[in-house]
Order: sequence, then structure tokens, then C-alpha cells
Amino acid sequence: MVGTRAKHLLVEYEGCDPAILDDLEAVRGLMRQAAEAAGATVVAEAFHRYRPQGVTGVLVIEESHFSVHTWPEHGYAALDFYTCGDCVPERADAILRVALGAERAEVVLVDRGLRLETGSMQLHFRAAEKVAARGSG
Amino acid sequence: MVGTRAKHLLVEYEGCDPAILDDLEAVRGLMRQAAEAAGATVVAEAFHRYRPQGVTGVLVIEESHFSVHTWPEHGYAALDFYTCGDCVPERADAILRVALGAERAEVVLVDRGLRLETGSMQLHFRAAEKVAARGSG
Repeated sequence: MVGTRAKHLLVEYEGCDPAILDDLEAVRGLMRQAAEAAGATVVAEAFHRYRPQGVTGVLVIEESHFSVHTWPEHGYAALDFYTCGDCVPERADAILRVALGAERAEVVLVDRGLRLETGSMQLHFRAAEKVAARGSG
Repeated sequence: MVGTRAKHLLVEYEGCDPAILDDLEAVRGLMRQAAEAAGATVVAEAFHRYRPQGVTGVLVIEESHFSVHTWPEHGYAALDFYTCGDCVPERADAILRVALGAERAEVVLVDRGLRLETGSMQLHFRAAEKVAARGSG
């Protein structure tokens, strides 16, 4: 990884399709599709299905990671798209929001990383901001 | 997973020991130790070492996930501790901060999950807040 500056999207979806949220292979396939759309390169992955329900999965990418946690019983999913470099994590959000059938979404963007250009090595947590409010649901 | 409410700690460390940050097995071991201390149960993991340097790793836990990204050349590491249930992710931060030799740390706590108790299914992104400012470095 070159450069420490990263965009971290914290994403929550409500009103999703429970069948998809409980289907590990479907979720895995959508996450990989979203990573590709964002311009990320997947280098490792780990997925797990909970009993009685729910899926968790993480893609390790060259540019950091994507994660997903689902609660089919509540139609709810929580995702993170953490990317360095030239990735566009917003594209991952756009794809998954539709594919999971989300009725409402909230997205918070957090800038992370060091300010190398100032030479100060100052940590840079810009305040989280809501970049997409509830949808039409 | 039972209940959707989660605590998500976004953590950044500066001034860390570069040798540890570049040692995949050391980072893996410390992450697992931190997960245990937090009360989490590891169910899967994925780690990757970058060329020429840097480590990324994710633990999938029963209670969600832990992740780490390191930049040895800058003594910098970015971590996430995302936990549901009765875990105490602050304990993971406490362990890793010391073990990685961090001179300075910033931690932001984000509450995530649905407000099931209100019946409103309202998404609940409490604003991120700084819970630990710079250390003595």
C-alpha cells in the first residue's frame, strides 16, 4: 500500500431482502462484485454463516478491506468499505444498496490516515459526516 | 448474532515499532490476543502481507470483526474493533496500543445498529466522538 490516506465508508441498510442477507454465497458474490466496481483488488477473504441466521464476511483488498454483517431477521445489514488509493468505495455502496433491496440507507464517510504532506505526521480523523440520508423508503 | 446494536471503535496509532508492524505473524498473534481480551470468539481470519511492506488482517468473530492495516514505513496503523453483544472492544485497543509501541493514538467510537426497542427500526448513527486523545507522545 502506498500512502496512508484512506476513505472509510460506514454503511447501514434497512428493509433488505432477508433471503439474500441469509445466503452466504449470494452475499460473497455481491461483495466481490462491489469490490471490483470500486476498483479494488481482492487478495483474501473470510466468510462465516451464523446459526440460526446471518452472514459475516470480509474481503481483504490491496487497498484495505470491505466487511459485511447481516441480520436477516431484521432486514438489516452493516457494511464498511475502507479503501486507500484511487478506489471509489461509493460505487460499492451503490451496487449493494440495490442488490440487497435496501429501502433505507445511511452512509458516513470518515477520512483516515496521516497527513504526510505537512510533515507533521498528524493523525487526521475528520468528523464523520452523513453523505447519504435515508432513501425513499 | 443476537441483537443488532454494535460498538465500533475506529483506532489510529502513530509512532509504532516498524518491525512489529511489518511482521505478519506478530500482528496476527496480537490481534488474536486482543480479541480474546475483548471477549470475542474468532471464527475465521484472513491476513496478507504487502510488498515491499505492510500487513493487513481481519478476524471474523462471532460478534462481528476486527481489522488492522499497517504502514511500517510511517510507524502507522489503522484498526477497527466492531463488536456486538457483551464484548469490550476498548480492551483490544488497550492491548494493541502498548504491544505495537504506539506513541500517540486516536480512537473514535461509533454506535451502530437498529433501535429495536422503539419498534421504529430507525437507523442509529450516533456522531463519532473522540474517546481518547493523543497519548504522552
